[in-house]
Amino acid sequence: MAHSLDLADPLAHARGRFRLPDGIVYADGNSLGALPAAAPAHLAHVVESEWGQGLIRSWNDAGWIDAPAQLGARIAPLIGAHADEVIVADSVSVNLFKLLAAGLTPRRRTIVTLAGDFPTDSYIAQGLANLLGNVTLREIPLADIVTALDDQTAILLLTHVHYQSGARHDMAALTAPAHAAGALTLWDLSHSAGAIAVDLNAANADLAVGCGYKFLNGGPGAPAWLFVARRHQKRLENPLSGWMGHARPFAFEPGYTPAPGMARWLAGTMPILALAALNAGLATFDGLAPAAIEAKAAALTTHFIDRVAHIPGITLATPRDPAARGAHVALAHDHAQPLTQALIAHRVIPDFRTPNLIRFGFAPLTSRFADVETAAATLAHLIETQAWTNPAYHQSRKVT
Amino acid sequence: MAHSLDLADPLAHARGRFRLPDGIVYADGNSLGALPAAAPAHLAHVVESEWGQGLIRSWNDAGWIDAPAQLGARIAPLIGAHADEVIVADSVSVNLFKLLAAGLTPRRRTIVTLAGDFPTDSYIAQGLANLLGNVTLREIPLADIVTALDDQTAILLLTHVHYQSGARHDMAALTAPAHAAGALTLWDLSHSAGAIAVDLNAANADLAVGCGYKFLNGGPGAPAWLFVARRHQKRLENPLSGWMGHARPFAFEPGYTPAPGMARWLAGTMPILALAALNAGLATFDGLAPAAIEAKAAALTTHFIDRVAHIPGITLATPRDPAARGAHVALAHDHAQPLTQALIAHRVIPDFRTPNLIRFGFAPLTSRFADVETAAATLAHLIETQAWTNPAYHQSRKVT
Repeated sequence: MAHSLDLADPLAHARGRFRLPDGIVYADGNSLGALPAAAPAHLAHVVESEWGQGLIRSWNDAGWIDAPAQLGARIAPLIGAHADEVIVADSVSVNLFKLLAAGLTPRRRTIVTLAGDFPTDSYIAQGLANLLGNVTLREIPLADIVTALDDQTAILLLTHVHYQSGARHDMAALTAPAHAAGALTLWDLSHSAGAIAVDLNAANADLAVGCGYKFLNGGPGAPAWLFVARRHQKRLENPLSGWMGHARPFAFEPGYTPAPGMARWLAGTMPILALAALNAGLATFDGLAPAAIEAKAAALTTHFIDRVAHIPGITLATPRDPAARGAHVALAHDHAQPLTQALIAHRVIPDFRTPNLIRFGFAPLTSRFADVETAAATLAHLIETQAWTNPAYHQSRKVT
Repeated sequence: MAHSLDLADPLAHARGRFRLPDGIVYADGNSLGALPAAAPAHLAHVVESEWGQGLIRSWNDAGWIDAPAQLGARIAPLIGAHADEVIVADSVSVNLFKLLAAGLTPRRRTIVTLAGDFPTDSYIAQGLANLLGNVTLREIPLADIVTALDDQTAILLLTHVHYQSGARHDMAALTAPAHAAGALTLWDLSHSAGAIAVDLNAANADLAVGCGYKFLNGGPGAPAWLFVARRHQKRLENPLSGWMGHARPFAFEPGYTPAPGMARWLAGTMPILALAALNAGLATFDGLAPAAIEAKAAALTTHFIDRVAHIPGITLATPRDPAARGAHVALAHDHAQPLTQALIAHRVIPDFRTPNLIRFGFAPLTSRFADVETAAATLAHLIETQAWTNPAYHQSRKVT
């Protein structure tokens, strides 16, 4: 069954764009994308030739100075944005701070977000509110989000696909009431971009951020990116007004003048080696249609849910409708943490999310239906044998 | 003469720790440090083995999660700090924002800085002041800095070695009056760390930032770092309160609790590949005493000044006393920009700084006295032949 699905998979060839360890089922592409096959040689070239031989001349000659905008333009088609609406910069956390601060107005000082959304999004909003003193952060249950939007609301901040459940918001359906209330929408696409088809402009979204190291395959801690719809680009200003966001950074003028377009969202100098890896990660999407990627994600996760939802002790924490989820599936189990360690020991790599979730992220470019099948069978076996009773699977780890 | 100086140089062996292009005099280590010889293999290992094979497991197994603190501890001895006072994070611009915001108090809302200091330091302060609305930025001439400090002053922000002139402040002599006024000092060590002996704790300094890509040899756009003196670590809080600065990032708690120690100054996930290159850069300092590095910088720059100060049309813009400068020398010339291009065409690489300066940065670990001699002779020749009259040297470049 899985074999025939893999044979019929129009994206099956994409796996050849990566180097994956032998004998491993990698189900954590939602935490760290796999290594693009072209990345080692590309990085070696940037290190040995551009840095080692070109030295400072490479800022011009190798185009380093243009890399943040050029990589942003490569991300744009994956998220339904124009090329001049996206730039690579800093981290998701730092970019959230910039956009949240920029979106406040003298009269609108409330940020509305979902209770239980990815913590850093809330932490950053808390830090901004503490710094400014006159900003309110409201963390609201899903059912009450729309009614919480009012004439004090500056921004509705949401992660598009939830980091735990994988549940996906209807972007257009939430943007409309936000706009009706006079607020902007800010979408965290960390678990969406590269996994499903996102169309920011079709949804009339205002602002977005996302990370480079998950489904975009940019390498561990890859730089993040941000999106500002064209209609807001002249008005919104970056509070982290560093020199790379200046209209003329090498004029060394005493006063800050924001660059036109997205360049103003840069702050300091960007890590070029990390950008080189992200470039290789984005190249893995060449020629692949977002709709085909989403269709593969839906098929993989459906297949997995079909295989695991009935296992005793497992509760499916992810929506059953593929259109209502991303590319990962979360399963609740009373012994989720040792079960995760047992899976890793058995060469199936998902991750654990407190308090009781095992997340299986099936990156559409690298995952085979055979991998899904192996992951499900291994999980069933480990539960049947009560693997959590083995003390070896109770080791403590800094990163879970 | 230069040959005998190189033979007698106790740091001469350090050049062997780098790969430099043949036939080039690299006098821009103050903008981008050279490639450490060990960097390509180290990066290839991190990319191919840790990322490619270890995948998500490397956050624990390869110690990625500890890299920012471990690299901070490696920087500490170069700047007179304790290992637990330094962490690698983000960019200089972003770190300046964090520390400037943290250093404000309800009653002290003024930032004093030097007029004409490196622009991004001022741009970031301007951005913070615009965001908060009740912060005053005072840009003061050098002679008036001490008298400008008053009971409104929260922070005295200074670059230790000036990016243009190379002039070095007496850190202890300026920290004392800042403390007498009740203010904190915040030092930008971008042009100091790795070039001269810095002793933050001997000067009783409070806060510092610095960049990784200049004299620390961490690669283009390498992550930056920050220092907070132990006595301030409990009190000061990071306004960019992202998840990696949380006391328990993987507990995914709804409320932000800052980590103890320096970890609270992290925001988002750090770029691991860029940290790997910085690690190789910091390894080039193994076993080298900061005092020996400073002595070499003084000898190189003195030798250069002796060779060029008399050239017609050249005005020395850098202090003649080695203790009053860093490791670069700035020369003013009416045709500085085309002269810089002519030097590069003649395989001597300095950089240009508007409006009329040529900067020669002699990184003590890679520069030979013979390089200094060649740079001086090439400059003398190009001025004698009026190289600036050649239109080929008037090309426009994005990065200067």
